[in-house]
Amino acid sequence: MGNTFGRAFRVTTWGESHGDAVGAVIDGCPPRLAIDLAGIQRDLDRRRPGQSSLTTQRGEADRAQILSGVFDGLTLGTPIMIAVWNEDARGRDYEHLRYIYRPSHADYTHQAKYGIRNWKGGGRASARETIGRVAAGAVARKLLETAHGVEVLGYVKRVADLEGQVDPDTVALADIEATPVRCPDAAVAPAMIASIGQARKGGDSLGGVVEVVARNVPVGLGEPVFGKLEADLAAAMLSIPACKGFEIGSGFAGARQTGSEHNDLFYNEGGRIRTGTNNSGGVQGGISNGENIVLRAAFKPTATIMRDQATVDDQGNEVVLAGRGRHDPCVLPRAVPIVEAMLALVLADHLLRQRGQVGEGP
Amino acid sequence: MGNTFGRAFRVTTWGESHGDAVGAVIDGCPPRLAIDLAGIQRDLDRRRPGQSSLTTQRGEADRAQILSGVFDGLTLGTPIMIAVWNEDARGRDYEHLRYIYRPSHADYTHQAKYGIRNWKGGGRASARETIGRVAAGAVARKLLETAHGVEVLGYVKRVADLEGQVDPDTVALADIEATPVRCPDAAVAPAMIASIGQARKGGDSLGGVVEVVARNVPVGLGEPVFGKLEADLAAAMLSIPACKGFEIGSGFAGARQTGSEHNDLFYNEGGRIRTGTNNSGGVQGGISNGENIVLRAAFKPTATIMRDQATVDDQGNEVVLAGRGRHDPCVLPRAVPIVEAMLALVLADHLLRQRGQVGEGP
Amino acid sequence: MGNTFGRAFRVTTWGESHGDAVGAVIDGCPPRLAIDLAGIQRDLDRRRPGQSSLTTQRGEADRAQILSGVFDGLTLGTPIMIAVWNEDARGRDYEHLRYIYRPSHADYTHQAKYGIRNWKGGGRASARETIGRVAAGAVARKLLETAHGVEVLGYVKRVADLEGQVDPDTVALADIEATPVRCPDAAVAPAMIASIGQARKGGDSLGGVVEVVARNVPVGLGEPVFGKLEADLAAAMLSIPACKGFEIGSGFAGARQTGSEHNDLFYNEGGRIRTGTNNSGGVQGGISNGENIVLRAAFKPTATIMRDQATVDDQGNEVVLAGRGRHDPCVLPRAVPIVEAMLALVLADHLLRQRGQVGEGP
Amino acid sequence: MGNTFGRAFRVTTWGESHGDAVGAVIDGCPPRLAIDLAGIQRDLDRRRPGQSSLTTQRGEADRAQILSGVFDGLTLGTPIMIAVWNEDARGRDYEHLRYIYRPSHADYTHQAKYGIRNWKGGGRASARETIGRVAAGAVARKLLETAHGVEVLGYVKRVADLEGQVDPDTVALADIEATPVRCPDAAVAPAMIASIGQARKGGDSLGGVVEVVARNVPVGLGEPVFGKLEADLAAAMLSIPACKGFEIGSGFAGARQTGSEHNDLFYNEGGRIRTGTNNSGGVQGGISNGENIVLRAAFKPTATIMRDQATVDDQGNEVVLAGRGRHDPCVLPRAVPIVEAMLALVLADHLLRQRGQVGEGP
Repeated sequence: MGNTFGRAFRVTTWGESHGDAVGAVIDGCPPRLAIDLAGIQRDLDRRRPGQSSLTTQRGEADRAQILSGVFDGLTLGTPIMIAVWNEDARGRDYEHLRYIYRPSHADYTHQAKYGIRNWKGGGRASARETIGRVAAGAVARKLLETAHGVEVLGYVKRVADLEGQVDPDTVALADIEATPVRCPDAAVAPAMIASIGQARKGGDSLGGVVEVVARNVPVGLGEPVFGKLEADLAAAMLSIPACKGFEIGSGFAGARQTGSEHNDLFYNEGGRIRTGTNNSGGVQGGISNGENIVLRAAFKPTATIMRDQATVDDQGNEVVLAGRGRHDPCVLPRAVPIVEAMLALVLADHLLRQRGQVGEGP
Repeated sequence: MGNTFGRAFRVTTWGESHGDAVGAVIDGCPPRLAIDLAGIQRDLDRRRPGQSSLTTQRGEADRAQILSGVFDGLTLGTPIMIAVWNEDARGRDYEHLRYIYRPSHADYTHQAKYGIRNWKGGGRASARETIGRVAAGAVARKLLETAHGVEVLGYVKRVADLEGQVDPDTVALADIEATPVRCPDAAVAPAMIASIGQARKGGDSLGGVVEVVARNVPVGLGEPVFGKLEADLAAAMLSIPACKGFEIGSGFAGARQTGSEHNDLFYNEGGRIRTGTNNSGGVQGGISNGENIVLRAAFKPTATIMRDQATVDDQGNEVVLAGRGRHDPCVLPRAVPIVEAMLALVLADHLLRQRGQVGEGP
Repeated sequence: MGNTFGRAFRVTTWGESHGDAVGAVIDGCPPRLAIDLAGIQRDLDRRRPGQSSLTTQRGEADRAQILSGVFDGLTLGTPIMIAVWNEDARGRDYEHLRYIYRPSHADYTHQAKYGIRNWKGGGRASARETIGRVAAGAVARKLLETAHGVEVLGYVKRVADLEGQVDPDTVALADIEATPVRCPDAAVAPAMIASIGQARKGGDSLGGVVEVVARNVPVGLGEPVFGKLEADLAAAMLSIPACKGFEIGSGFAGARQTGSEHNDLFYNEGGRIRTGTNNSGGVQGGISNGENIVLRAAFKPTATIMRDQATVDDQGNEVVLAGRGRHDPCVLPRAVPIVEAMLALVLADHLLRQRGQVGEGP
Repeated sequence: MGNTFGRAFRVTTWGESHGDAVGAVIDGCPPRLAIDLAGIQRDLDRRRPGQSSLTTQRGEADRAQILSGVFDGLTLGTPIMIAVWNEDARGRDYEHLRYIYRPSHADYTHQAKYGIRNWKGGGRASARETIGRVAAGAVARKLLETAHGVEVLGYVKRVADLEGQVDPDTVALADIEATPVRCPDAAVAPAMIASIGQARKGGDSLGGVVEVVARNVPVGLGEPVFGKLEADLAAAMLSIPACKGFEIGSGFAGARQTGSEHNDLFYNEGGRIRTGTNNSGGVQGGISNGENIVLRAAFKPTATIMRDQATVDDQGNEVVLAGRGRHDPCVLPRAVPIVEAMLALVLADHLLRQRGQVGEGP
């Protein structure tokens, strides 16, 4: 049951990295939503490998195909099945990994849990699984835009120690997409690119932080206790491969402030209740307050590196794993559309949950 | 549906801060587990107000009562209902808050979402709701101890800028409980206590970080995609009032490392596969690897402060809210048993999920 | 997890027959619904034992107490906890059943499943568990009435071989409540009463059929596949103790007809699409069509009888169980409010699900 | 969310009758189960159209393709995606139905619910949706056979008024498959076949009853309250298109008996607790007791008939619908594998649920 996300807008992803295909089924999507295959493809293209020198060179077109749930360009209210065929699944490349547990990968834990694993390329633990999320996220995004003009924008905030200065309230897609590193701070992006290039040359990898903002979010999304918006957002982010941390609004830095510094004071802006600061990150008591939702997800450096590493095989023998194969020296640029997708999925889910319990409001 | 947590070991909390009672129903607990009311009470006592000068003085005994699901001291496999009566619910204390939205509280968002709220003391947004979690967590803890000797220990890692040095692999309950601040670093705890006292005097409040460790966790808990152990743990932590951030293992700091620094190399320790470092925090690819699970939750400074603050009322008038009433200048010490409870609930749920899908193993 | 019903309007019942209390938690109820404790009590009174000579004489007032989720008479949108204390729980009466499996009761299967059971009065398998359902059903009923004027009316259609002639489109509550047997066919009710009395005298018991109608149901409730309205209704009915069968509309009799006889032809009644007949029972393709929903639930004769019966004890010894204690010679009259409650719960759940996915509609 | 069935062994079906494909995703299947594509195909072949003169002549090979979750013939524990391409989707055949609501079909209710529908062939309401169930059911069946030797056998018990005499404890697959009507009573099957042929000639259709038995079911499956085995079974059956009724064990007939006639007396059969009769149908108090599970599902006559019928179009105009196209004069023979699949899915789900909560038992 761990492959379904959401309660009202529900997404189930399926597919192994080196199986026939990967994809997602969306259940609960409202009917009569105009689905734009190009919009889905745009997000998939931002996620796919080989898009720039910063990413792995696995050559996949990642063409989305909608197999059900859409009729004459409109959703039917029935399950939407989206599939992407695996084309460049070079199983032979992985033969040397058949019996070896790669450090900080999921090989050992999958094997220990299930007593079996698809050792060709990571199976479900591969980033390839996120194709289904991005495709489904594009549908969620369309729903949010159509219903409330919600806009979701992610970008690379930090690579290793290089941090961009970005204003989430004003950042624009063009600035983000201006460079392959997807950091909209033009003063820092070149250094990030250089740093990633250097890591690649050294056979090493880098981590970093993605920040994402959602604008025009209606007040009232999220539920007070376990269904808090930030709880579902945290789960969404930590479900992404390589994510090790989450914070919303002030986050860990906020824990260093005093209450009198941290509290977001309310004021009346022409009839709309606003807060002067946004340490809350757009969510108070688990429920959106109408300010921009701002959150950050920390990603560890890619586990696959081109260096020799000590490890064990499935018989417990201590062996040396030589670096080999295709890899991303830094997942951050490709993580951006995934983070956006997960945020959109959470908001779409809570939009329907709120409408279900409370109605469309005054 | 936002009031239920877990899929196999399911907890539903209920109750408002100033209603008749609060509590939890646990569904799915295995039968024949010995339930020790004293064990539940011990955890509730660590959470309750008034336990030290560091916490709010609301006088509540918080006595747990088990209304169903336990027979002759053993669980029946049927729903376990645990209730705690509200005794010191001074509704009159809140009359001045009837029409006012307290900054960085949930008053405004609850009202905007539901069109109604229990304005006496925060309702479901009150920390009082966590009583049900702590009670249920004590049952989960018992299950984990009985099945695998799992030990869950939380402690205050940081208050504002004061950070303790604690080894999660060896920390002991006695060290944690040695001071009311629940930081086991004896060199830092007094400063933390002084700092909290100073904040209280100044009518202000402090935030901080709780760290928690689970030892003796079996390999194989967690599911590869949306059911990743860290995803459920992140949701668990962010569902706690005032929590703004989560990290597991290396967390945000890990995002500054290179892959060659960060990877946890496997070795064979007398037949058991171990990792030399634990940057993964005990979870790889969403699944426990048998190392200690270590995570941190960041808490903002308490929103209730004893100072004048600008805000608005429910008619949109801009008003000044005077500081008044009972409050915790720092929630961290009382958050410790809540963090422990949420961790225990996640592990118990995944223990049953794993057993359901895969069986009891070889 | 088997103790929760519904997805959007969710009810979890808890409590054993001879524990401290029984009750229900409702999660997901819309806010600002006026809750009428008298309405809840009215339904509980129709369910409670001792209300007439036809029912068991266990003396329980079954007074409902609302512990959370309602504030100044209105729902808050938070969990509604309703409890009923067990007052006449004569545990001693059951001492002789401690080691014996009563035929066609749940003693053996509970013990085999869980390795433990509350042997005092049936535990969760007791009809006393249905108190929580009836209380929650009263809230669901209020929601349905308020939103759409939905009216839910159940009645005894058959006792053993005695069948009443009742028009579900016109039957009135007063006719149903006119006699303790709750069969509105005045020509048959006396015979039913006599028949039940005779069974009681003979230490035996009778079964029968309850029919229930929901009027003014909006078009569009239910979902096409596994969430078909009739699927959830069937589960609802078969979850009631002693229920052995379910049919909607034409049911088993419809299986004897030809398509040309059975099809419900559409016509236009002043702009509203109607069907000339209602073999569909108000549901087509899993979705309500605006006609009255009509269904029937078959109940077996009460398993507790006042006669000697061969059985085994928990050591496998073959023994004779003597008839003894309190019992209902026929559960049908008391089943009526339970059947109504379950129907109301299904409709309320689907009302919120439909509003969530599709909105409030034109 | 209405397209997912089960809690632990979860099946989501997707696809419209006249879209590109139909199929199912199974989540939660145990790992290392040997999957036999031929076994899946065998069940699909028993369901597919065109297999005999009794069924619709739509020409579909219905070849199953497994796209994920199986590796070298064994399940991975990850989602199993099974797809069947639609080959004979003659959309043009349905052009005349674009604006017309067929009586006792789901056209009107789908349109009223969603404001849109795939008018080509029934969309999700088509029996073609059940392909995903049958494919998933074959996996469930394999799990049940492997774990406990469970055997699931369905057959046509009744067509219109023609009822077969069948002993569920001894009936064999060969007897069922001996004739295209799938009634193992050789004395009645020919009359059923003739009767269906006659209905076809007259442009009419017939309904009937399918009975199904599960043998070797372990004791302890099912949960006491809403998760009763019979509740999930009833939902499973009523979710099948055209199903109007469900009964387990004695069912509606049992409601005519007295308790002394109906109670299943326990005895000790060489250390195993058995019941002398099986009016309970293998389930007591919602939990399997080890006796054969026997249930029946009533199906209405096919709504598609080759006769003129009065109806309305989507503008509310009263029109006449002429009979035309392909149809099954009686769905019963093809319903048999669907009923079996749904029974297998319920048992597999509860097998995992029981193992999760209680463990593998003594």
